[in-house]
Amino acid sequence: MGYRIGIDISGGDNAPGAVFEGAMLASREIHDKFVLIGVQQEIVEEARKHRVDLSNFEIVHAPDKIGMEESPAVTVRKKKDSSIAIGAAMLRDKKIDAFVSCGNTGAMVCASTLIVGLIEGVERPGIAITIPTKKGVSLIIDVGANIDCKPLHLLQYGAMASVYSRLVLGKGNPTVGILNIGEEESKGTDLYKTTHKIFSVAPLNFMGNIEAKNVFSGECDCVVCDGVMGNIALKVSESCADFIVKSFSAAARKNLLGILGYLMMRGNLSEFKKKLDYAETGGAPLLGIDGIVIEGHGRSNAKAVKNAIKVAAKELKQDLNAEIKRKIDEVCQDNRVRQILAA
Amino acid sequence: MGYRIGIDISGGDNAPGAVFEGAMLASREIHDKFVLIGVQQEIVEEARKHRVDLSNFEIVHAPDKIGMEESPAVTVRKKKDSSIAIGAAMLRDKKIDAFVSCGNTGAMVCASTLIVGLIEGVERPGIAITIPTKKGVSLIIDVGANIDCKPLHLLQYGAMASVYSRLVLGKGNPTVGILNIGEEESKGTDLYKTTHKIFSVAPLNFMGNIEAKNVFSGECDCVVCDGVMGNIALKVSESCADFIVKSFSAAARKNLLGILGYLMMRGNLSEFKKKLDYAETGGAPLLGIDGIVIEGHGRSNAKAVKNAIKVAAKELKQDLNAEIKRKIDEVCQDNRVRQILAA
Repeated sequence: MGYRIGIDISGGDNAPGAVFEGAMLASREIHDKFVLIGVQQEIVEEARKHRVDLSNFEIVHAPDKIGMEESPAVTVRKKKDSSIAIGAAMLRDKKIDAFVSCGNTGAMVCASTLIVGLIEGVERPGIAITIPTKKGVSLIIDVGANIDCKPLHLLQYGAMASVYSRLVLGKGNPTVGILNIGEEESKGTDLYKTTHKIFSVAPLNFMGNIEAKNVFSGECDCVVCDGVMGNIALKVSESCADFIVKSFSAAARKNLLGILGYLMMRGNLSEFKKKLDYAETGGAPLLGIDGIVIEGHGRSNAKAVKNAIKVAAKELKQDLNAEIKRKIDEVCQDNRVRQILAA
Repeated sequence: MGYRIGIDISGGDNAPGAVFEGAMLASREIHDKFVLIGVQQEIVEEARKHRVDLSNFEIVHAPDKIGMEESPAVTVRKKKDSSIAIGAAMLRDKKIDAFVSCGNTGAMVCASTLIVGLIEGVERPGIAITIPTKKGVSLIIDVGANIDCKPLHLLQYGAMASVYSRLVLGKGNPTVGILNIGEEESKGTDLYKTTHKIFSVAPLNFMGNIEAKNVFSGECDCVVCDGVMGNIALKVSESCADFIVKSFSAAARKNLLGILGYLMMRGNLSEFKKKLDYAETGGAPLLGIDGIVIEGHGRSNAKAVKNAIKVAAKELKQDLNAEIKRKIDEVCQDNRVRQILAA
């Protein structure tokens, strides 16, 4: 008997269609039990459309929805019948082992923190994102859960990302770096100077500060930063990538020669596109929550949803949170770390 | 008789060669007097190599050099015979009207602030960068001069960027936005919440917070942020662009069909490359200094140097700093702005 994975059918720009379809795709590849959380009528309607037999799935009716632009904290408290609030409550009550949603990120962070709670010892949850690099993938944490970071939070992000990289991304002894405006330990704000000191003594494979220009080089497996910096870095990359790819194909299609060239190259470009495609890497783990939570991209299509669910399944199989708890204990009880934090 | 533009021949990864060549290219297009600041012997050697008659140029011997990786504050004080320190002193003494360098950015900010000084009323200098967007170019300020920003600094950045956009980039009534993790005025850290309040009442064409994902859309002419955020945003974009372009051409060249296609498209791609090429936009103005200062990219080639010098010439012709002073007075003496700052 596998795990029970809850899926927020109402969350995301393309919900419920793409989410339902993604869940069906995932169900062909993994054998955990899926709990579909959403408006019952809509789920039944999607099943009819896709000619799916729902008897293998559990359906939990969540009449309410949280919009993508609604204010997180207020909404989560008010909308107790929303798919996000119900999913979080089920995770807290161990009725599901993992919860996957492509809905309102702020609401997911809020609901997970307030309803599910944190792993013992963890101070703040962090959203981790895998990005493509010249060497494969790297992880950036935090990209927006925590805008008021303390050095301890960043240390814990480093520890959690390191565990995730090892267990879920399969990296041997993942390197951890701090995103900063320069490589020297004296660079940046006071927050980052203290953080550098703590990382230097912590039981992590610390490689020092990493400049933003090197993020995509793949030298560093786990890039740690506060939620504001991470959010800006992530969103700017998306914006830049979008701009470049669109400019490129517009320039290529300008005349017949360009179009012909583009068509001839097209076959070769699938691997490149795959690298850039967030749908390939699936959702972003919300690390530190006392239960597996995956936040999919709001724009997720069925394939992205499928991959987000597969990430959840992998986290469960690897017992990620047990190892995170162990690692958090290790770094936080380290004597040299405690000395710096106490100073 | 035109202005006198000082050029740091020793500054940048490709100095002195590329800088000298860039100065020669610029001298064919603009008729201001060029003052070449660097190691005399090297300048003479470059002139010989390029068969240039140096009689039209003034040469100022600066025996010392500041390396790209040297610690700014200390070095500027110590190396008084460096091209950067000498250039800054000449700008202070009005022996030159503008100073262009592709050298150590931190040293340039330090020397400009400490030796030249700020425009009356300006609290902190800011580095502004023009980036390509879907609609043309936008300006981001600050990308690394000021890592400890206050709301007043950001307000002044908005004012200075707005003037620069109008006078140098030729924009009618430039829009000004604040880079933040969300569009709502309640988003972000306390610094950004207060900043939003001040911008809302200031005499600027304020369009609100702008998310990082919209930076390259070109909706916002002047994107204002603190030096850490701006540095990360800029460097991540460069890194991302580099990664994408390299992956793309590698994917395209994988087999004969791909290579043929690439060759057929190549003619069409020059415009695209032009958009991405920092060499096209030239250097970054260091705004707020009581003298025109342009910081070129460390990797500048001759063309980039030429364009950086042209930007300096344009700033002088438009009397940029007089207008910045007027605008700084206007925003800082605004009653509603003063009320919020006093609160």
